Amino acid sequence: MEEITVNLGPRSYPILVGAGALRSVGARLAALGSGRRTALVSDRSVLAFHGRTVTASLSASGLSVTEICVPEGETAKTLAVAERCWDQCLTAGLDRTSTLLALGGGAVGDLAGFVAATYMRGLPFVQLPTTLLAQVDASIGGKVAIDHPRAKNLIGAFHQPRLVVVDPAVLLTLPDPEFRSGLAEVAKHGIVLDAGYFADVEAHVPEILSRDLPTLERIIAGSCRLKGRIVEADEREGGLRAALNYGHTVGHALEAATQFSKWLHGEAVSLGIVAAARIAERMGLADAETGERQVRLLRHLGLPVGFSAPAPEAIVQAIGSDKKARDGKVPFVLAPRIGEFRLVFDIPPDLIAAVLAEIQRRSG
Amino acid sequence: MEEITVNLGPRSYPILVGAGALRSVGARLAALGSGRRTALVSDRSVLAFHGRTVTASLSASGLSVTEICVPEGETAKTLAVAERCWDQCLTAGLDRTSTLLALGGGAVGDLAGFVAATYMRGLPFVQLPTTLLAQVDASIGGKVAIDHPRAKNLIGAFHQPRLVVVDPAVLLTLPDPEFRSGLAEVAKHGIVLDAGYFADVEAHVPEILSRDLPTLERIIAGSCRLKGRIVEADEREGGLRAALNYGHTVGHALEAATQFSKWLHGEAVSLGIVAAARIAERMGLADAETGERQVRLLRHLGLPVGFSAPAPEAIVQAIGSDKKARDGKVPFVLAPRIGEFRLVFDIPPDLIAAVLAEIQRRSG
Repeated sequence: MEEITVNLGPRSYPILVGAGALRSVGARLAALGSGRRTALVSDRSVLAFHGRTVTASLSASGLSVTEICVPEGETAKTLAVAERCWDQCLTAGLDRTSTLLALGGGAVGDLAGFVAATYMRGLPFVQLPTTLLAQVDASIGGKVAIDHPRAKNLIGAFHQPRLVVVDPAVLLTLPDPEFRSGLAEVAKHGIVLDAGYFADVEAHVPEILSRDLPTLERIIAGSCRLKGRIVEADEREGGLRAALNYGHTVGHALEAATQFSKWLHGEAVSLGIVAAARIAERMGLADAETGERQVRLLRHLGLPVGFSAPAPEAIVQAIGSDKKARDGKVPFVLAPRIGEFRLVFDIPPDLIAAVLAEIQRRSG
Repeated sequence: MEEITVNLGPRSYPILVGAGALRSVGARLAALGSGRRTALVSDRSVLAFHGRTVTASLSASGLSVTEICVPEGETAKTLAVAERCWDQCLTAGLDRTSTLLALGGGAVGDLAGFVAATYMRGLPFVQLPTTLLAQVDASIGGKVAIDHPRAKNLIGAFHQPRLVVVDPAVLLTLPDPEFRSGLAEVAKHGIVLDAGYFADVEAHVPEILSRDLPTLERIIAGSCRLKGRIVEADEREGGLRAALNYGHTVGHALEAATQFSKWLHGEAVSLGIVAAARIAERMGLADAETGERQVRLLRHLGLPVGFSAPAPEAIVQAIGSDKKARDGKVPFVLAPRIGEFRLVFDIPPDLIAAVLAEIQRRSG
């Protein structure tokens, strides 16, 4: 079992990565010295797969558990669902010493984290991510939120977990598209943060795709370490953390312009990475091989690198209403070479549209 | 104009106290270097009294303002109102650099602060308190919340303001019961934190009640300084900050047991202080004169020191569901002498009930 610490002073916490780690949740949580009451937020199918493992582990350590079952996926991230969770926390008698645990993908973690951040002004919170995307990205760093009808993640908070337990064995039952979606974030971490990590992923695509557990453990722990380091340096997303938005500016716009129904998040991010790579090339910021390596890895990982709709203009418009806009300007993350990133403001919308049109031509 | 700094590292902020201070909001806010967009959350009558002063000040400093009008008093602190505020922030195009200002009493500050804490995971926030209660207490320290149908302030956050502007001149138009309600918190600060401050209040009751501006400025600034010092030492209410709950355990229970309709908050706190003083006497923790001085000051300030209903048992039951309970136990703040406090757990419910019954007998 690997243990990675995210150092944030009084808000520091460990990330445990290892096959079977879910069975140690109770013991690790009890050792933190919080109160005896806990609530486990999850959805029906995840509970069916892994609920018993977690509740048994909590009970064995003398902790009581109330299960809070929420809808699957992004549909959990509404104010109505958050309201039901607050109700159930109150009915279960949770107080400020109680712990809320999120068992599931990024959406469950976002919702449960928001409930934990706001119930009684903040409860201890534990992330038990069960998708690759949540394991390498969403569960680390304390960004929690629900959606607004007009904007994803609009209502949220920064609320760091006390503990993150990553069990790669749960990925063995994950549907293939969801597994690959998570690989987009793995690729992203390599591209903007660590050339060595990128090369490791590049060199082990077959082992990754066949879900070889030791390989997964190493790759996931590597991503957790990279993400943790960024969060340490920039907890509240003031600057450096923006690096993690690589591929996400166009990715989010693609999702928003298609009502989040056409691509999984990682698929949209993959397309966003392709766009960012091409923009960097066009601006003379990166050479062609830097872009090609990114596109090649994404393709080998089974991720989309081309698309035909929506129209470039619709995407550019969606970029304009990005939550990261500061007084109207959207910062773009670009990679001058593998393992490095640069924040670029004021990229002309025409250039973005031209790159998107070119990607569509190539893939048409 | 007095300026008090609340030192919280990167979250430090100034409290400006002075007659006419509201006119300097724009200049002070602009100097903080946030974005140009702001929204002003307030209710209709406060806007009628002071809205123009604030918006003129903001405009003069080149800041744009969107007014968000919310219901008066505690009725503003609902999820439905928060939802409307989020909508209006989005429609107004507020981004993470925009500032939300709360102009009003504690309820407006609590609601607007919660909206600011959660919109886009947190916006800069400014408190412009217009009641005495909000000026000496609620606007300082970052505790923000909305109510749950079954529990006040259940959904909230710690979100420090960037700036608090306290203008005692606005108190000249405050209705008398509301003004006196704020004095309960003034008395509380003296009782548990500072004997010299308590003596100053004791010695100047006529000037305070006639709302003599220089006296108000001194007394309010003193309270802000005391509260600020506590917040500095215990930002997230881990321990020391509990001192500020003096009189609030019974006070909250009285409010809850009467559906928040019988007393203003400060009136209930006044009764709670009387109860805490009598409990300390009974337990042999404080001498009789310590209690008498408290009751005498409250009476001189025009605050209630006796009541006939609800029944002691109902109050004791309401205490049991206090949000501050830790694994079922409610900590009680007691004052062994003026200017000092002690946290006491496990006060027998029978003793509390007996003290409440005695207060009712005396006032019957």
